[in-house]
Amino acid sequence: MYKGWEGFVPGKWSSDEVNVRDFIQKNYTPYEGDGSFLAPATEATKKLWAIVLDYCAQERANGGVLECDTKIVSQITSHAPGYLDKNLEKIVGLQTDKPLKRALMPFGGIKMAEQAAAQYGYTVDPEIHTIFTKYRKTHNDGVFDAYTPEMRACRSAHILTGLPDTYGRGRIVGDYRRVALYGTDYLIKHKELDKSLIDGEMTPDRVRDREEIAEQIKALKALAEMAKSYGCDITKPACTAQEAIQALYFGYLAAVKDQNGAAMSIGRNSTFLDIYIERDLAKGILTESEAQELMDHFIMKLRIVRFARIESYNQLFSGDPTWVTESIGGMGSDGRTLVTKNSFRVLHTLDNLGPAPEPNLTVLWSKRLPLAFKQFCADLSIRTSSIQYESDELMRPEMGDDYCIACCVSSMRVGKDMQFFGARANLAKCLLYAMNGGKDELMKDKVTGKAMQVGPEFMPILGNEPLCYEDVKHKYEAMMEWLAGVYVNTLNLIHYMHDKYSYEALEMALHDSKVGRFFATGVAGLSCAVDSLSAIKYAKVTPVRDEEGLIVDFVTEGDYPKYGNNDDRADEIAVWLVKTFMNMIKKHYTYRESVPTMSILTITSNVVYGKKTGNTPDGRKAGEPLAPGANPMHGRDSHGALASLESVAKLPYEYSRDGISNTFSITPQSLGKDED
Amino acid sequence: MYKGWEGFVPGKWSSDEVNVRDFIQKNYTPYEGDGSFLAPATEATKKLWAIVLDYCAQERANGGVLECDTKIVSQITSHAPGYLDKNLEKIVGLQTDKPLKRALMPFGGIKMAEQAAAQYGYTVDPEIHTIFTKYRKTHNDGVFDAYTPEMRACRSAHILTGLPDTYGRGRIVGDYRRVALYGTDYLIKHKELDKSLIDGEMTPDRVRDREEIAEQIKALKALAEMAKSYGCDITKPACTAQEAIQALYFGYLAAVKDQNGAAMSIGRNSTFLDIYIERDLAKGILTESEAQELMDHFIMKLRIVRFARIESYNQLFSGDPTWVTESIGGMGSDGRTLVTKNSFRVLHTLDNLGPAPEPNLTVLWSKRLPLAFKQFCADLSIRTSSIQYESDELMRPEMGDDYCIACCVSSMRVGKDMQFFGARANLAKCLLYAMNGGKDELMKDKVTGKAMQVGPEFMPILGNEPLCYEDVKHKYEAMMEWLAGVYVNTLNLIHYMHDKYSYEALEMALHDSKVGRFFATGVAGLSCAVDSLSAIKYAKVTPVRDEEGLIVDFVTEGDYPKYGNNDDRADEIAVWLVKTFMNMIKKHYTYRESVPTMSILTITSNVVYGKKTGNTPDGRKAGEPLAPGANPMHGRDSHGALASLESVAKLPYEYSRDGISNTFSITPQSLGKDED
Repeated sequence: MYKGWEGFVPGKWSSDEVNVRDFIQKNYTPYEGDGSFLAPATEATKKLWAIVLDYCAQERANGGVLECDTKIVSQITSHAPGYLDKNLEKIVGLQTDKPLKRALMPFGGIKMAEQAAAQYGYTVDPEIHTIFTKYRKTHNDGVFDAYTPEMRACRSAHILTGLPDTYGRGRIVGDYRRVALYGTDYLIKHKELDKSLIDGEMTPDRVRDREEIAEQIKALKALAEMAKSYGCDITKPACTAQEAIQALYFGYLAAVKDQNGAAMSIGRNSTFLDIYIERDLAKGILTESEAQELMDHFIMKLRIVRFARIESYNQLFSGDPTWVTESIGGMGSDGRTLVTKNSFRVLHTLDNLGPAPEPNLTVLWSKRLPLAFKQFCADLSIRTSSIQYESDELMRPEMGDDYCIACCVSSMRVGKDMQFFGARANLAKCLLYAMNGGKDELMKDKVTGKAMQVGPEFMPILGNEPLCYEDVKHKYEAMMEWLAGVYVNTLNLIHYMHDKYSYEALEMALHDSKVGRFFATGVAGLSCAVDSLSAIKYAKVTPVRDEEGLIVDFVTEGDYPKYGNNDDRADEIAVWLVKTFMNMIKKHYTYRESVPTMSILTITSNVVYGKKTGNTPDGRKAGEPLAPGANPMHGRDSHGALASLESVAKLPYEYSRDGISNTFSITPQSLGKDED
Repeated sequence: MYKGWEGFVPGKWSSDEVNVRDFIQKNYTPYEGDGSFLAPATEATKKLWAIVLDYCAQERANGGVLECDTKIVSQITSHAPGYLDKNLEKIVGLQTDKPLKRALMPFGGIKMAEQAAAQYGYTVDPEIHTIFTKYRKTHNDGVFDAYTPEMRACRSAHILTGLPDTYGRGRIVGDYRRVALYGTDYLIKHKELDKSLIDGEMTPDRVRDREEIAEQIKALKALAEMAKSYGCDITKPACTAQEAIQALYFGYLAAVKDQNGAAMSIGRNSTFLDIYIERDLAKGILTESEAQELMDHFIMKLRIVRFARIESYNQLFSGDPTWVTESIGGMGSDGRTLVTKNSFRVLHTLDNLGPAPEPNLTVLWSKRLPLAFKQFCADLSIRTSSIQYESDELMRPEMGDDYCIACCVSSMRVGKDMQFFGARANLAKCLLYAMNGGKDELMKDKVTGKAMQVGPEFMPILGNEPLCYEDVKHKYEAMMEWLAGVYVNTLNLIHYMHDKYSYEALEMALHDSKVGRFFATGVAGLSCAVDSLSAIKYAKVTPVRDEEGLIVDFVTEGDYPKYGNNDDRADEIAVWLVKTFMNMIKKHYTYRESVPTMSILTITSNVVYGKKTGNTPDGRKAGEPLAPGANPMHGRDSHGALASLESVAKLPYEYSRDGISNTFSITPQSLGKDED
């Protein structure tokens, strides 16, 4: 029995298991009240936040990056402790030795690390260059060694876009709560046990698994060492709320020192932490104001997570987001709400520190959430526009009640599932390939000057007759079949190399060793492709050819049903398309027995994808943005907000298990006259 | 048509294929004459050899190592050109920038590299230490991360011995002739083609294969660059004998700069080179003296190949051999001899430079070899004791007529097969484990002070009755079954890590991409185990126990048939043992679809193995050497040389495809009164 566990209701979690959900279920206190108990920012919080704002102002003034590390390769224990203000901080720990100084992370790719630094006027130490070109191969080098010419062509033509071959795949969420609840010694002991269970014929899979756990154990030891450098002992269970938040944050900090994944989400922590806060409040060793201060300081740290990114990355993601997604609330499988007072506190940081996109505070929404909490969220959303909502009712039946969101919409059971992130295939562009026999409508072959043959040389549509829906659909299916194959295999290759050269040892150390793996694919341009097919089916669409004979534009006469208006004629095409492509994905081998999933998700990158897509039969002009995620094309959802949402809601979640996103803006007045 | 190919008979080899055997068959000139044409060492050779001898004397005077590189990590292009005497050398190229300076090779293991240097008073640059501990993992680190406790115990107890986990596995022989015949451009083109053929579902195997070929291509480019630094262009086919020998040697040199495998054999090159020499002789641009000079200078270079080794390695191998095995002669599948004048020249280096263990000149022996060549070999053997013989008649039916020997006895088709080297399992020790229920007869548990449990806790032999043969045999089978499993799986793990952290890119670049792989296991202590079983069966063997009850000695009463006397009673046990263990090996998964083989081979390490083996029922005392390879136990072959050889010859080659070695010393007088 550990000192840190005193006062907690024991259970499976304390019986030589690692089981955070059981701990939560046995110990948490659902809260149905309102936010009137909340405390404002303390003086220390205000001073500290002013320091952060000052650093951020300097960062903006300096062109977006304050400083880049050029000498120290970021690893869990690479840097000496760094502080904002040591005397004020209740939760300590920085990625490097100085706030907002961006770490040097070459394991994913030395070229990118150097480009990112160069972009802001820094030069990476030549010695580091030598090491990561002569002695230590990187993920990026591995991928490009193995790519086929077809994969490279798809990448250049942007029919496959945003592949994680020049940046970390991210989307892996360690169960950072384990660090607080168990301490590293206990976790190491269990990893050693897990390693011993991998025995028998030493196939490459088993050897790899044993080595990976060995690396995980090293990472946990490094984590404890890093904490120690800040004067904290996290080898044993945390004894107080402050220790719990600190230990949890150290776990996350080690992850962002080790990896610069595109999305470095943090999990589902506030209700877990509430248990520690409640215990301290009951003991009288913590006040509400102090509890809020801990959460404020914790969130402050999450707001200053930074990575050095290259220009094309920033363009793709419209900035350099980190997607420190924290999943809040939701309902328990037993019918109790998982909302606690600390669900309020974490959201209250938007008031105490002001609105911010990071951490990405995500409420797991259910009609059954306590009314007061729903009102609290609505009020905050109106005032800050800083909350993301996801349907707990849709995900809980699949995921249980201890899942979290990675990045924007990818759900996974905390510490039990991980994801191989797969970016997106552009289905609108694929439709054009189907009509042009695999030739790219925008990219020219450098030698011949003619349209680049990217896809297979299938029979194109010939003649200048109006397009025949059945013919186009048939050709589209064949081209999607090809695209699904090259897409899945490109990802198979990328993830093999990521494991080989940039394995997320610390994050995976905070997962069960027998982890569930999702093979996440994604599609872009859904509504554009659907409307284009609908136009071909219901209106008259005549192809326009260039001198080479390539279809480069369309004359569309007459009206046609558009996705986003609750019109089954269009919406059924959308459902067909989602199911069809997902089924094609499923036909292929997927790395490490991962379960293939699909997302219909882009929040910003649809703009870049649109730039690389020619004129489409729906009337969209070349270069114009595609709609984000599962959104209807901009302005075409003319039957009101509800009809628009109804169309999106028809998309089958079973065929898009990695999530469906709908970006929805509404003026507050639309929802009523005043806050009541 | 390349300039370098002028005058050669074309064939498949010149029809957009890589096919050295076809080139040889179409172009070589069998030689049935004697050695009277041979030329003595030239003045340049004598001067150069004196320089080498001087360096060797300095090396000995310096405790066995002249100098260790501590700063430059050995890679194909890591060092500036080095020379013995630039004006005298016809064949140039050193492993480092100075003769006999040993290279720093940390990819297999930084600890070993540092230990080896430290042993001779050198300290590896701390920066290199940092790189190979923080950024670049090594083969040795990978292996020890993944080992099971059982594997480590077997290793510590030396029931598995000499595993290639602290040194390079070696035994991979590049087809260095390809560099001369084709040049690197042609080879790169074919490797690019091979890479393009690996397509389809991107399973980890396919991704690995694509990446490996990419690494091979880089290695070929580095090879050309290294040659260029010596002023040689090897991108195109060699045009003269000098260019051919030089290009071939550069290929080998790149291999020994890249890898420090236990055996770095060179293949089967002399007949191939004879074709170039014959062409130059016919053209009148080369004399016999010049031809011999080229071969002498080439062999000289092979004699000064060095690696920095650790003490335990030197003990195991009784020195630091490199096994630069060159396979000579043999018969062709079409009945012609593969002996050429250059087979004589390469052996004649033993006269021109004096006897030497390296390169390991190995004659592929057949009764059908030309008489004059056989007489030449016999004469040289008598005078120099420097020739190894292997049975061409035994190997050719399995291997065709373009195989070579790697190390001592491992045959493989040049450029078409490779081997995963697997060291040895100690079958004599295993017999003791069978009797003691898996307890080690020598090693004590550090905690309890009692005999270490290494093998499974099977029922030991109880009581003090004389041993029952059937009971011991039954227990032995069970224990061998266990040993075969842990042995094969230890090797599976080692070879996975070797590929991952220390892949032989240059050597594999000089193999067909679809290569045959042998999974080479080996046994030690065969004759000791056989004689022990024979004693139990035919004499009366009573166990002697220590206070713990462990069988630690035996009282053997009466005589028994001993292996090595052409006595079927003993020899049948040997045949049974070889077949039984090999069949047990075959039951298991072997890495990369490799074909399991077994060798009965030790030339020197049987001494070390004996040190780690307790008293045995045959009367051998603890610590005394085992017999080398398939040899009878020392002194027990009392029925004459022929009977001894007959016993060895009964061992089934089909169950010991990696080779059977018999170390045989004979005084010249035994063979006749004089040289005629």
